[in-house]
Amino acid sequence: MEFIINQAIFSKALSDVGKAVSSRTLLPILSGIKIIADSDGITLIGSNADLIIKRWIPAKMEGTASVKILKPGSVVVSAKYFTELIKKLPDQIIVQANKNHSILIQSGEIRTQFNGFQADEYPTLPKLNVTSRIHINAEELMDAFKQTVFATAKSETRPVLTGVNLTFTKDKLISVATNSQRLAQKEIYIDSSTVEETVVVPSSSINELLKLIHHDSGKINIQLAEGYIQFETVEISFYSRLIAGNYPNTASLIPTDQKTTLILSKELFVKGIERACLFAGEWKNNNITLSVTDDHKLCISSGSSEMGNIQEFQEIKSIEGETELKISVDGHFILDALKTIQDPEIKLRFSGMMKPIVIESTEHDSTYVHLISPVRSY
Amino acid sequence: MEFIINQAIFSKALSDVGKAVSSRTLLPILSGIKIIADSDGITLIGSNADLIIKRWIPAKMEGTASVKILKPGSVVVSAKYFTELIKKLPDQIIVQANKNHSILIQSGEIRTQFNGFQADEYPTLPKLNVTSRIHINAEELMDAFKQTVFATAKSETRPVLTGVNLTFTKDKLISVATNSQRLAQKEIYIDSSTVEETVVVPSSSINELLKLIHHDSGKINIQLAEGYIQFETVEISFYSRLIAGNYPNTASLIPTDQKTTLILSKELFVKGIERACLFAGEWKNNNITLSVTDDHKLCISSGSSEMGNIQEFQEIKSIEGETELKISVDGHFILDALKTIQDPEIKLRFSGMMKPIVIESTEHDSTYVHLISPVRSY
Repeated sequence: MEFIINQAIFSKALSDVGKAVSSRTLLPILSGIKIIADSDGITLIGSNADLIIKRWIPAKMEGTASVKILKPGSVVVSAKYFTELIKKLPDQIIVQANKNHSILIQSGEIRTQFNGFQADEYPTLPKLNVTSRIHINAEELMDAFKQTVFATAKSETRPVLTGVNLTFTKDKLISVATNSQRLAQKEIYIDSSTVEETVVVPSSSINELLKLIHHDSGKINIQLAEGYIQFETVEISFYSRLIAGNYPNTASLIPTDQKTTLILSKELFVKGIERACLFAGEWKNNNITLSVTDDHKLCISSGSSEMGNIQEFQEIKSIEGETELKISVDGHFILDALKTIQDPEIKLRFSGMMKPIVIESTEHDSTYVHLISPVRSY
Repeated sequence: MEFIINQAIFSKALSDVGKAVSSRTLLPILSGIKIIADSDGITLIGSNADLIIKRWIPAKMEGTASVKILKPGSVVVSAKYFTELIKKLPDQIIVQANKNHSILIQSGEIRTQFNGFQADEYPTLPKLNVTSRIHINAEELMDAFKQTVFATAKSETRPVLTGVNLTFTKDKLISVATNSQRLAQKEIYIDSSTVEETVVVPSSSINELLKLIHHDSGKINIQLAEGYIQFETVEISFYSRLIAGNYPNTASLIPTDQKTTLILSKELFVKGIERACLFAGEWKNNNITLSVTDDHKLCISSGSSEMGNIQEFQEIKSIEGETELKISVDGHFILDALKTIQDPEIKLRFSGMMKPIVIESTEHDSTYVHLISPVRSY
């Protein structure tokens, strides 16, 4: 194997696939990145038990030759050290691998020799016995993941809750996550798809995908197979295992009736909750209290007898329904939800002291919804 | 006590003195910040066993009223929560403390009540029985600290080596630090001073001081007292305890004879050492080897039989003395020293395989010097 490659492009691609590689693996070869050079370009592969990242560097990128293949072949290199070295080299890099999988890297007057692994010892990628394929806009999909993944459960007591539930229907994809105290849901409309399936993707995979795929990544192909999901753009192919098990029916949790509906300025509300959380953090459940005053202001308060307390009053942009309202919730759950929302105004729906608060868009046809269960305050 | 204060100024000042406050103190009052309001402005004090930071906010700052004192007084507030709250408040802030040291903070429609401590329970500041006073330019002093503090010992085996040794003579201040494998020294010329003394300041204090004092802080007054040193600018007064004990005589360690002198491009040399360190990290002592080739190039190399090796050749700007040279050193020690140097070119002096390498300025009258002991390579 022998090729000449642009340093910046190579370094970025190595760091992309490196995200799937852990140095703490029992199988030494999985601490490496597989490099495959053929006449069309370079393929890089990194993997762990949960996910596989494949990255493609075409020989011709937008007219300029980013990589020139002198001799096809393949080898596996140490992900950590090889990536670190390439990051520190200047300009063009010549990479050569001989039969003993010893790799020679040259850049100007810098010569490095690395011991690699034999390429055919690297595990083969799973054959996706593809049952279904969906095309989605990268920007919309990534936004949907950002708006839901934070709400997954951190504890492994119910494994399905540690993942994001994706439900594909004829015309939309519904992304849901819940830890049973809060729930986040976002819908995306997709062009007619023949797939009707529901799967649970580990939150760790979703978080890695969010680092790799950018808003300008164009279209994403999603392929579902037995136990796997694959996300594919022009440059990247990302495989994640699925979490087995039945995801709870969350649609029934969203209250349909409401006693009170408030419209608030998102920014002002975030700042108020942040201040109240300062005192709430001292308490169990980060307990803060929301109430409506007689003159129709929102009062955000919290306090501990030991430290002190905070109370602030905010203008309500609009109030509908009952004006008597008092509810205690985990302030950090509200903040997590609000941080993923771009809208300048948000709608808060209350159905009673012991029913979850609903946060949604002020648009008639809100595509996102956040539920937060109240905390009993004694 | 009652005053109205600008949020940004108050928040910055609280965070400055907060650097001396630890929440893990056995004495609850030391987890607080003392606030003193008198007709001229506000004084804030934070302290721990090793250092005290006093910060001054004058009632009139550059014409604008940054703080308006309505009623003089003093109180002690929880450093962590009070600072966090002030950071999150908008605009002007009204602070009031009553006799029961309960503090009321108001900003617009936000009302917070904090439980504080009684001000007279706060320990009194040490009386500096001042024996000596020196004026130094802030920029020069901070640069001297930056160029030396990194070389202090991390282990407590010899406590004096964990500090920076400051020696005041008639016309200069010499700052020295060493962990016995490397040494950093920087001299500053000062106007005629009557002080001739040598003290050792804890590296932790120097590091905190570096965060507080900026290049534009003007002149710094240094005052020495029994067991204490005080650094003072217009806004800040910083007290640090001194480390007792005799600092070793380091002047004799700097080799005066030399076999080989090289002039190198600093940037190129840094990059070469960084690359070599990649392989050296796997070895004990981060061992890298410097040698001069037959055609008078500098060869930087390192390697482990397991991983691979690196070898690179760099132009030498000038070479004097013996051209046969091979020495092994800890690459990270070289990097630490080079990172504090701004010069585009540096001078390396070698006195033999087992003598320390000297790094200094190419100027005839170098005010800094770094020594790095060689590593035996087997």
